[in-house]
Amino acid sequence: MKRRVAVLGATGIVGQRFVQFLADHPWFELELVMASERSAGKIYAQAVTWVLEKPIPKKAYELKLYPIDIDLVAKEKIDIVFTALPADVAKELEPQLAKKGVMVVSNASSMRLESDVPLLNPEVNADHVDAIEVQRRNRGWSGAIVKVPNCTTAIATLSLKPLVDVFGVGKVIVSTMQALSGAGLTGVPSMFILDNLIPYIEGEEEKVENESRKILGTFNGNNIEFNKEISVTASCHRVMVLEGHTEAIFAELKSKTSMDEIIKVMEEFKSNKIKNMGLPTAPEKPIVVRREIDRPQPRLDRLEGNGMSIVVGRVREDKTLNGVKYVVLGHNTIRGAAGTGVLIAELLVKKGYA
Amino acid sequence: MKRRVAVLGATGIVGQRFVQFLADHPWFELELVMASERSAGKIYAQAVTWVLEKPIPKKAYELKLYPIDIDLVAKEKIDIVFTALPADVAKELEPQLAKKGVMVVSNASSMRLESDVPLLNPEVNADHVDAIEVQRRNRGWSGAIVKVPNCTTAIATLSLKPLVDVFGVGKVIVSTMQALSGAGLTGVPSMFILDNLIPYIEGEEEKVENESRKILGTFNGNNIEFNKEISVTASCHRVMVLEGHTEAIFAELKSKTSMDEIIKVMEEFKSNKIKNMGLPTAPEKPIVVRREIDRPQPRLDRLEGNGMSIVVGRVREDKTLNGVKYVVLGHNTIRGAAGTGVLIAELLVKKGYA
Amino acid sequence: MKRRVAVLGATGIVGQRFVQFLADHPWFELELVMASERSAGKIYAQAVTWVLEKPIPKKAYELKLYPIDIDLVAKEKIDIVFTALPADVAKELEPQLAKKGVMVVSNASSMRLESDVPLLNPEVNADHVDAIEVQRRNRGWSGAIVKVPNCTTAIATLSLKPLVDVFGVGKVIVSTMQALSGAGLTGVPSMFILDNLIPYIEGEEEKVENESRKILGTFNGNNIEFNKEISVTASCHRVMVLEGHTEAIFAELKSKTSMDEIIKVMEEFKSNKIKNMGLPTAPEKPIVVRREIDRPQPRLDRLEGNGMSIVVGRVREDKTLNGVKYVVLGHNTIRGAAGTGVLIAELLVKKGYA
Amino acid sequence: MKRRVAVLGATGIVGQRFVQFLADHPWFELELVMASERSAGKIYAQAVTWVLEKPIPKKAYELKLYPIDIDLVAKEKIDIVFTALPADVAKELEPQLAKKGVMVVSNASSMRLESDVPLLNPEVNADHVDAIEVQRRNRGWSGAIVKVPNCTTAIATLSLKPLVDVFGVGKVIVSTMQALSGAGLTGVPSMFILDNLIPYIEGEEEKVENESRKILGTFNGNNIEFNKEISVTASCHRVMVLEGHTEAIFAELKSKTSMDEIIKVMEEFKSNKIKNMGLPTAPEKPIVVRREIDRPQPRLDRLEGNGMSIVVGRVREDKTLNGVKYVVLGHNTIRGAAGTGVLIAELLVKKGYA
Repeated sequence: MKRRVAVLGATGIVGQRFVQFLADHPWFELELVMASERSAGKIYAQAVTWVLEKPIPKKAYELKLYPIDIDLVAKEKIDIVFTALPADVAKELEPQLAKKGVMVVSNASSMRLESDVPLLNPEVNADHVDAIEVQRRNRGWSGAIVKVPNCTTAIATLSLKPLVDVFGVGKVIVSTMQALSGAGLTGVPSMFILDNLIPYIEGEEEKVENESRKILGTFNGNNIEFNKEISVTASCHRVMVLEGHTEAIFAELKSKTSMDEIIKVMEEFKSNKIKNMGLPTAPEKPIVVRREIDRPQPRLDRLEGNGMSIVVGRVREDKTLNGVKYVVLGHNTIRGAAGTGVLIAELLVKKGYA
Repeated sequence: MKRRVAVLGATGIVGQRFVQFLADHPWFELELVMASERSAGKIYAQAVTWVLEKPIPKKAYELKLYPIDIDLVAKEKIDIVFTALPADVAKELEPQLAKKGVMVVSNASSMRLESDVPLLNPEVNADHVDAIEVQRRNRGWSGAIVKVPNCTTAIATLSLKPLVDVFGVGKVIVSTMQALSGAGLTGVPSMFILDNLIPYIEGEEEKVENESRKILGTFNGNNIEFNKEISVTASCHRVMVLEGHTEAIFAELKSKTSMDEIIKVMEEFKSNKIKNMGLPTAPEKPIVVRREIDRPQPRLDRLEGNGMSIVVGRVREDKTLNGVKYVVLGHNTIRGAAGTGVLIAELLVKKGYA
Repeated sequence: MKRRVAVLGATGIVGQRFVQFLADHPWFELELVMASERSAGKIYAQAVTWVLEKPIPKKAYELKLYPIDIDLVAKEKIDIVFTALPADVAKELEPQLAKKGVMVVSNASSMRLESDVPLLNPEVNADHVDAIEVQRRNRGWSGAIVKVPNCTTAIATLSLKPLVDVFGVGKVIVSTMQALSGAGLTGVPSMFILDNLIPYIEGEEEKVENESRKILGTFNGNNIEFNKEISVTASCHRVMVLEGHTEAIFAELKSKTSMDEIIKVMEEFKSNKIKNMGLPTAPEKPIVVRREIDRPQPRLDRLEGNGMSIVVGRVREDKTLNGVKYVVLGHNTIRGAAGTGVLIAELLVKKGYA
Repeated sequence: MKRRVAVLGATGIVGQRFVQFLADHPWFELELVMASERSAGKIYAQAVTWVLEKPIPKKAYELKLYPIDIDLVAKEKIDIVFTALPADVAKELEPQLAKKGVMVVSNASSMRLESDVPLLNPEVNADHVDAIEVQRRNRGWSGAIVKVPNCTTAIATLSLKPLVDVFGVGKVIVSTMQALSGAGLTGVPSMFILDNLIPYIEGEEEKVENESRKILGTFNGNNIEFNKEISVTASCHRVMVLEGHTEAIFAELKSKTSMDEIIKVMEEFKSNKIKNMGLPTAPEKPIVVRREIDRPQPRLDRLEGNGMSIVVGRVREDKTLNGVKYVVLGHNTIRGAAGTGVLIAELLVKKGYA
């Protein structure tokens, strides 16, 4: 039986991706879409400024758009709520939903670092999901809140995970070239970015540095411990690309190896935590490694694995750090947001939490 | 008395910048412009596809364009030749010119790493110019070859120099977002870069890693020794910007300090090797530090100091590397090529080499 | 039984589109791909710089790439050759192929205006196909040459056809904003077009003005007569868009009507010459009319009808011309080139010519 | 003695241009800058998001920014107010200023078509300025309101004026490719325009069609009569260009002529209404004609004549319209807004109105 799901913040760019992934999902039925007062009352197709590469799914086209309303979520017996809300709104709202017994899969940055809140990049740390039990105990909730990582961090940690497991990783330097969609539909005025780039994204570097250590950490039955071996520093920049974050990563490795071995370890990704679970949105190959000298490129590679694979290229030795440097690309609103949110929800169903 | 100068490779984008800086120069008289056979015989304004922000200088407009011809350079009694030639052409041609007594200021990458060839970023290592005497002795030339650094390296080393002098620098990680002009007038087809970026620039990373250590090295009277304390690793990427390379730099510092101190040291730049020399192209402030949270930006900052200043921003502590991270922007065809070439020539005149 | 087909000029952008449309075609088997000497001998995936929104079709991936070779086309018993060659090469080669009995569907501009050469925009003038018989008689060929119209013209004439049939059209003014792909993979350097546009496309305006009158003309059994009622003037401009030509069209109408009536006539398109023929590449709706005030837009609308529909918007009265003005968008390398080429080939099969 | 001037709406993109043109003006002293409540109290440099190609003028840097305040304008004894306000705000405010004796040079679209309000493109219709006397009489004002034309219209009418005077002009078709700056600093989100264009600009086509006929009309001593011979139809489109509107113009001419003659008539522009008046902002050549086949181009030509000249190219015969077609480029925020505003103010001073 399909779970009844809702999207809160359904008209923004992450909201559009949620709608795209949920409208024809084998396990979920999209029952409810909510957005700000301004668009409430309209049908979805009228209210949204749809910008995705494929048209609005037919099932979503005529959905009535409601204002954000917790009681309506409860009344409609929604099993899972996907939120693409601003952090300040989410901070208030999501705990109320969890209290009412709703499973909340949230793309908002609030609460991401709390030790009883799973911050899930499923291939990397699906086992952290069991922190839900601690969370429920701690907070007296019948529902729960599970967080999607920051987009840049989701991409980076997925690429780092096999290296952490096989070689050990110490210092990590991440320098990003991030897509416009990361700032939302209207976040970056064209006058500010044409023939230009903006070397600053509010809060982004701290998110990468902190969330990485949590995602690559361990759940010890009581709380999620941050990884203490890894130390991440980031510099984040906005460039003129519609979708797809590109990251130059430099990583110190604890044991010596060859570039061929690194590529093999990434492609095989033996420690993938959701291997063979049969989750519909899981990509066949979470990490695709390209050998061409000038890949990955956002326009050409962002839809790899339906946008759920990350694409690694230019794997080369780094003598300065005694390790490796490479370039990784991921689709920021799919792998880095809505797609991973849906994958998390599938994991929740599989594990019996939803 | 003005020196008689020539530009070889005068129609490309670096050639255009040389012409722009030389046409009305107080110390130099632009006597000769040369380019490939194809455009020879035309006047300069007809042959060039001029793309700079200001029109072709009047003095250059009607200059006759000759094919590359060493004998004509000699016959015209040219004192200084500025070359913006492909490396393979330069490799053959420049030694012949030096042998004939011409002072060659070259933007080509050939010979940049040879120990008797000054690789000059004047504020950083003007004293390396005296390697000319070694070069002449070694090679039996009456002229000489002096090299302009790779564009990315010129910008990076200028920003690093005060840190090296005051605090000591170890590991350096450089991740770049480079302008289209770096690939020449027609180097990057628009179909390849629109809504995209290209995470590879041929040979660039090696240049940054090797040239940095030479520029930040020392001339010991016999040869130029590479800096052995510093270790540079680079990842280089092309983005949709016309002019201006942006670099995210992460640097390990040998001694503890504060961010305010770092900014002060950069702005004061006490070890500037050409301070008070009165070179016309030297910018008043080689390093401009901006305090706004989202600067430097290429379109807004690239013409700082007539394109000869670099602009540093986002100076912040780097705990991973025990040092600092910052963003630096420089004009790649001015500070990173022709402008620095002209500044070098001014230094040569001042020092009596030309 | 599937026709054996070949693509000549298979690595350019129109060649890529031909390969994309032919690799899994129900009526055609892609047997042979040919390109310039330079890439010959490689497999297709190695030789091509693939830039389309979907990956290289599996069937084409491993095809061996041959140099252009008429004898090999004959030897391989190719039924239909699709050419995406430069006009000067096509001019020599295509008649030789036709002489050898091959049916040539050509995207090259050579011979487009000759009175016994069908210039086919199938919905508009499928009946001109019978000029093949005249062509064979005139030239003694067992094969034939059929031409795909200029991209801009294909889009414009499809939008004009229902107006011509129902209301009569006199003066037509066409002002275009054309995509980069129209100049080929490397035709427009990024340095020339970023923060810019180029108000000139070689030969384009003449093509629009002349080809329109032929496509909207009539085949009288002996030759194709140009439409004499219509008079077209064009101004053609290149803008920073990857794919999709946008055209502002102003048309004088011979009889009075309302905007609603014009929209209805376009949407119904009763005189569509291939209606109900069952051609696989024919779009369900050749002309899609959008009511939103700011459509069509190239990025959002170019793939309408798999790229074979044109999208019309902003239909409004034109008092200056006593007629109508509207904006029309079409996919230049699909509707304006390869897609229409394949549709023509389907028509040839249906009509028994191939 | 310098006139005391103020800019209302000083932080927007047209406001920035006003400040740029006024800060070092020989006849005007910039005394006051005003903007919305939000930025009031800050100094200008802090409040503005400056995007122009040159830095903020030193004189404007430290100016205190006030909220819009009519009484303060009066108290400061401002002679001329330049307004870059939204039309609805301007509609209320400007008449109050005029009533208080202030000369208002307004870039807002309100009141542009009223018959006693001069709509001035000085080279074209400087003589309409005398309608100020009628306006004062009609409305009982001691000050007055004078309007800057719509940007697209200012450029178009300047190019058409010599043709109207020498050959006579009937039907005119204008198809535009307009810059992002026309929509203001944040008007066009990058997600909406990258790899795209928007074929609609609110109200623009009506402005071009109506204002053209007023500007090219005549002041008969009592009111300004619209030109009845000319009939303009426009289609307006937004493209990915920072500054500079490009317009394809097709014009029916009443008398036969040659293209050489048309070019001559444009370059000479004998009927220029402000020739030899010595206005500081008047460009030496209001119309520059380029002979290259692919000009004008916005990035290369927009700053011609300090942004006050328009650049015409591709002058060619139009057989469909019995006339001429050409491409014209003008700087939309200089020639099409603030620059023309300042030129108008100079005319007002010269004529004794301010």
